[in-house]
Amino acid sequence: MRNHMHHQNRGVKSLASQAHTVLAFMHHLFGVRNRSATLFLAITLLIAGTALGDEGMWTFDNPPSKQMQERYGFTPTKEWLDHIRLASVRFNDGGSGSFVSPNGLILTNHHVAVGQLQKLSTAERDLVTLGFYAKNQAEELKCPDLELNVLESMEDITDRVRAVVKPGMNEADALKARQREIARIEKESLDQTGLRSNVVSLYHDGEFWLYRYKKYTDVRLVMAPERQAAYFGGDFDNFTYPRYDLDMAFLRAYENGKPANIPHYLKWNSKGAGEGELVFVSGHPGSTERLLTHVQLEFLRDVQYPMTLKMIDRRLQILREYGKQGPEQERRAQIDILRYENARKAYGGEYQGLLDEDLMARAKEQEDEFRARIASNPEWQKQFGDAWETIKQVTTARNKIAKQRFYRRLFTRSNLTNLATRLVFYVIETRKPDAERLDGYHESDLEALRFQLFSPAPIYPDLEEAIVAGMLQIAVDELGADDAFLKLLLDGRTPADTARQITRETRLTDPEVRKRLAEGGEEAIRKSNDPLIRLMLRLEPQLREDEEWYKDNIESTLSAASEKIAKARFAVFGKTAYPDATFTLRLSYGAVKGYPMNGTVAPYKTTLYGVFDRSESFDRKGDFELPARFWERRDKLDLSTPVNFVSTNDITGGNSGSPVINRNGEIVGVAFDGNIESLVGSFVYDETKNRAVSVHTGYIMEALRKLYDASELADEIEGKR
Amino acid sequence: MRNHMHHQNRGVKSLASQAHTVLAFMHHLFGVRNRSATLFLAITLLIAGTALGDEGMWTFDNPPSKQMQERYGFTPTKEWLDHIRLASVRFNDGGSGSFVSPNGLILTNHHVAVGQLQKLSTAERDLVTLGFYAKNQAEELKCPDLELNVLESMEDITDRVRAVVKPGMNEADALKARQREIARIEKESLDQTGLRSNVVSLYHDGEFWLYRYKKYTDVRLVMAPERQAAYFGGDFDNFTYPRYDLDMAFLRAYENGKPANIPHYLKWNSKGAGEGELVFVSGHPGSTERLLTHVQLEFLRDVQYPMTLKMIDRRLQILREYGKQGPEQERRAQIDILRYENARKAYGGEYQGLLDEDLMARAKEQEDEFRARIASNPEWQKQFGDAWETIKQVTTARNKIAKQRFYRRLFTRSNLTNLATRLVFYVIETRKPDAERLDGYHESDLEALRFQLFSPAPIYPDLEEAIVAGMLQIAVDELGADDAFLKLLLDGRTPADTARQITRETRLTDPEVRKRLAEGGEEAIRKSNDPLIRLMLRLEPQLREDEEWYKDNIESTLSAASEKIAKARFAVFGKTAYPDATFTLRLSYGAVKGYPMNGTVAPYKTTLYGVFDRSESFDRKGDFELPARFWERRDKLDLSTPVNFVSTNDITGGNSGSPVINRNGEIVGVAFDGNIESLVGSFVYDETKNRAVSVHTGYIMEALRKLYDASELADEIEGKR
Repeated sequence: MRNHMHHQNRGVKSLASQAHTVLAFMHHLFGVRNRSATLFLAITLLIAGTALGDEGMWTFDNPPSKQMQERYGFTPTKEWLDHIRLASVRFNDGGSGSFVSPNGLILTNHHVAVGQLQKLSTAERDLVTLGFYAKNQAEELKCPDLELNVLESMEDITDRVRAVVKPGMNEADALKARQREIARIEKESLDQTGLRSNVVSLYHDGEFWLYRYKKYTDVRLVMAPERQAAYFGGDFDNFTYPRYDLDMAFLRAYENGKPANIPHYLKWNSKGAGEGELVFVSGHPGSTERLLTHVQLEFLRDVQYPMTLKMIDRRLQILREYGKQGPEQERRAQIDILRYENARKAYGGEYQGLLDEDLMARAKEQEDEFRARIASNPEWQKQFGDAWETIKQVTTARNKIAKQRFYRRLFTRSNLTNLATRLVFYVIETRKPDAERLDGYHESDLEALRFQLFSPAPIYPDLEEAIVAGMLQIAVDELGADDAFLKLLLDGRTPADTARQITRETRLTDPEVRKRLAEGGEEAIRKSNDPLIRLMLRLEPQLREDEEWYKDNIESTLSAASEKIAKARFAVFGKTAYPDATFTLRLSYGAVKGYPMNGTVAPYKTTLYGVFDRSESFDRKGDFELPARFWERRDKLDLSTPVNFVSTNDITGGNSGSPVINRNGEIVGVAFDGNIESLVGSFVYDETKNRAVSVHTGYIMEALRKLYDASELADEIEGKR
Repeated sequence: MRNHMHHQNRGVKSLASQAHTVLAFMHHLFGVRNRSATLFLAITLLIAGTALGDEGMWTFDNPPSKQMQERYGFTPTKEWLDHIRLASVRFNDGGSGSFVSPNGLILTNHHVAVGQLQKLSTAERDLVTLGFYAKNQAEELKCPDLELNVLESMEDITDRVRAVVKPGMNEADALKARQREIARIEKESLDQTGLRSNVVSLYHDGEFWLYRYKKYTDVRLVMAPERQAAYFGGDFDNFTYPRYDLDMAFLRAYENGKPANIPHYLKWNSKGAGEGELVFVSGHPGSTERLLTHVQLEFLRDVQYPMTLKMIDRRLQILREYGKQGPEQERRAQIDILRYENARKAYGGEYQGLLDEDLMARAKEQEDEFRARIASNPEWQKQFGDAWETIKQVTTARNKIAKQRFYRRLFTRSNLTNLATRLVFYVIETRKPDAERLDGYHESDLEALRFQLFSPAPIYPDLEEAIVAGMLQIAVDELGADDAFLKLLLDGRTPADTARQITRETRLTDPEVRKRLAEGGEEAIRKSNDPLIRLMLRLEPQLREDEEWYKDNIESTLSAASEKIAKARFAVFGKTAYPDATFTLRLSYGAVKGYPMNGTVAPYKTTLYGVFDRSESFDRKGDFELPARFWERRDKLDLSTPVNFVSTNDITGGNSGSPVINRNGEIVGVAFDGNIESLVGSFVYDETKNRAVSVHTGYIMEALRKLYDASELADEIEGKR
């Protein structure tokens, strides 16, 4: 999952598909509860060349064995790594999980599964509020559009990708040549193996890898607690610790209508990890921006973050107003509200870091030192020395179009407008040869794309209308109604009128309609009189032009310059560091450990006593109200049961739902958040304060057995069935 | 209680007695758990002229009735104020308390009573660790040297004090004349009423008041919990919230060998105060420095605080090393360690505020604005305009001698050296006419002084030796052995040798010896061959010279200039504000209210669930270990009982033990701390974050009845006996 706020090119699949990835954007917002201080951290890393403390999100081909051995006396074997990798699950819409039984049972966070819970809910049966438990497989509910991936293999294909770039090619052509080759590699792999095949750029195009995934699209809901237990403390406690959340959900992967047979699953350990114990997190951190130049940080601070935060505030306002209309509207809006509250807290915290003058000055200083080091070697200087100046120039150009680009794209950020955008591009792109298509529409992407396009998940036109009207209004307010794109879009009407018409009259809410249009191809689309399709056809040339201009004038140059900096880093330090996160599988290591906080110390764990304390402390009100079962069954509970715990693992958004694993490969927790200190950004990964927050396996077991009467599930997890 | 770190002249009793008030210093350190952000706050106040939000420590003659009415719809009657005043108790060695039964029963904090607990303890019976409960009056233990005061009356005597200063007098003479008159007033009042009579300077010599106190010197220990319950969380949790401390102790005032008959006592309310409820704190805030000029703040930042913090660190090191020698040594040092840990956290927090460049810049700006306002009125400018420049000049002079003054006085900061100093000055001063004596030795002071001098509290020579040696060593390290005072003191020996000789050979550890020497007068003292007395006699002229030089050259000028600024404030704003704290009775008002903290919200109260959570969270270890009775009796407890709560009341050190009172005059809690946000200094009293932390009456009652089997005491408090 990428960071669609920053639009830093990750090199392979990035910008062209971004206008089309509202859903990914939404999931980004949500999956990224712990964006961590990832934005700034590694300016120091860039200089030091090696990770500091327990820092790092390492690829499975290059684990930091030396550091782990030195700090914790542990070196993972190949078998250990393979087992963990194959037990780790990627949620394709953002998030992580793991297999915890041989029968396809998967543990993740409630907040990772909640999108599906919402889609499975109706006005009569709100699974988000009520929770859910399937006593047997027959009762399990099929998720409408959830795709899970398991990383089957990794192959270094850097040489093959690089070989297509010929001397003398300009940057735009080089990028295109490489992307064509990547599409070819993916298609070949898909044809040969049938596995989902993605080429991944690591170290900012320093390396290219072919990752092959086994995928599961028949995934069923097994168990989820009530929202009040999962998000206990609500937005207040989000990104904080001490914490008391039961942020868990269980799903099951099916194959051919039967529970998948999973040889690699994690053994359960309810005892959990003790203070100081070494633990691992295996998951899919979405994106980090640890290697931006100072100029790029300034761009984020001065341009990108203020726009983003303003948009988030507006969106929250829209959602809350909509939700106030009645209980059903409140239900429909609830998950989006959570997502945007989460985003506001995360981005707000990062923004505070960007505004910190000391931090920015240190970033500048460290960059200057690194550049001086490069400059001291004539060969390095010749190869890499101009990268920073190039980024500065391209950032100036980017600055000029950033506002236009940001606000034009807001229109596509509702479910309906996003679906329409992707439908139109789908039919146009798929008529071209694979290598010529926009990213996101290559053969290897299509199965997943269709899975999303034809999702039976409900769409609420009135909610869509409110969102589209609001987003259009911001665009008009910021760009003026004379903006060429907006003129085309509004055609003389108000944002409210436009939104009303397209959301009320479109039939794209029906997945069958979308399917027929997709299967009818460009001809069917062009014949359609659906007002939203007609509007998208009108907008498509401009959207395409914007994307192509951006790719040719910004992305290709940024990509080439970023690659130089990455290579400079390899030249100076070798491959002793980890690549920025790319929503691919990573391993982090660390110790279970409290930290100094608020004038005292935060403990390494919290307990069930604390759940009741925090609820009573607020007179059981609002976000601190517990489900009734907690009070009814209180006396059955062992109140000393650990609830959440913290560790020094370096994680970020996308890691939500990742298993926390001990050295024996047993699962001891499920990661779900970072503490507030990991947000408000120290420049460096600060082992003294940066913490991952996880749900303790002991709490999960206590809750399943004593609060939710889920003994069948508990027995399966503990291997008693 | 004054702030002996800053040595800002309070106008009446100040500097001459400071070298002699080690005990007060010690208690200052300890009584001052919540020094609050008092240091800086009122620079804004100075400009605004009125208190901000619930700010203020108001004298009982001038309560902020208008603000209270506006904010909370409550105006106290005279009867209400008199009742609260007469139920409020001052602990003469630092701290506050209140009567809670008609039979002299007093509630205060454990950390206020703990000095007496320590003095009542022996190697065989450590009351600090074990706690104590007297089931009946016969079992109550008499405190060795505790004096309590109740404010019987207040009389404005400003005119009489001012009248003795004649036109044309220089500042030194004016100060002396005033101090002579004050001594006369106090003596007259003592002779007439038999009450302890102190003249108090308020508003930095803006007003002088005669305060008369009823005093109790027969005070007995009734009940105290174990240290582990009272200070649960130890130094870690000190000055923080959420908090879970049973920081309470019960004493009883006796008269003529019988429990005192107290008509004004506070009715008990175990229900406590709800969220948002108006509450009052009536107690004795020690000192605030809210009206210092920017130059004086710089002096604190650059000179006073660094020295003080270094001394505290060294002292802690000495105490810990001593305590490591064995369990009895650990017991002996335990309370001093607590005191100095507390001081380190308090001063450390304030120092961080002083180091904050933004805060200091704002202080400067606000001072400049106020000075401009004065300058805009020619009459004001003439009267007050030169005060800041005067303070600047005298601070430059003070700077030059600050180091010498600080380090020379360290020698007197052990129990033995302090007693010896005061004994020697006592016999010399009391031969002079009352008005000519140094402050602290006037007739009105002598009863309290003798009470301290002849205290039967144990003194441990080996602990004294370690402290004296350590303090002397710092002095030598900082001033060099050539310092005139140190040369006189050491006479060629090492600090360690000097300390060893005087602490091992002195007989001043015996209160009878001290009594005989005091009663024998100067003759007996001069004949004594006690090595410590001989040393003090050698040092006395130099100590006296230092004090007199300071008084004539620094204090008198500072006092006059501070008075001008205070008058300027009256001129501009009238008497709409409160005076700086002076360890005299004050009323603060506020609401029970949580606050934003650490990315989330702190609740307005904590509960017994939280006590167990915090203990279990740290695996019941170290400072988070609870007394065994908590676990043994857990199932009998109502875990939803409120434990601690926070309110916006503006309090500071010395307020520890103050009753928290609702509008009906019932006691709902006992204040014991401030949160960390009240330490790390915002410039202004910040109602959003500044909180007083109190023990809830519900917890006290639950603990007495269910944990400590103290039903007799509980019944007395609830009026059931």
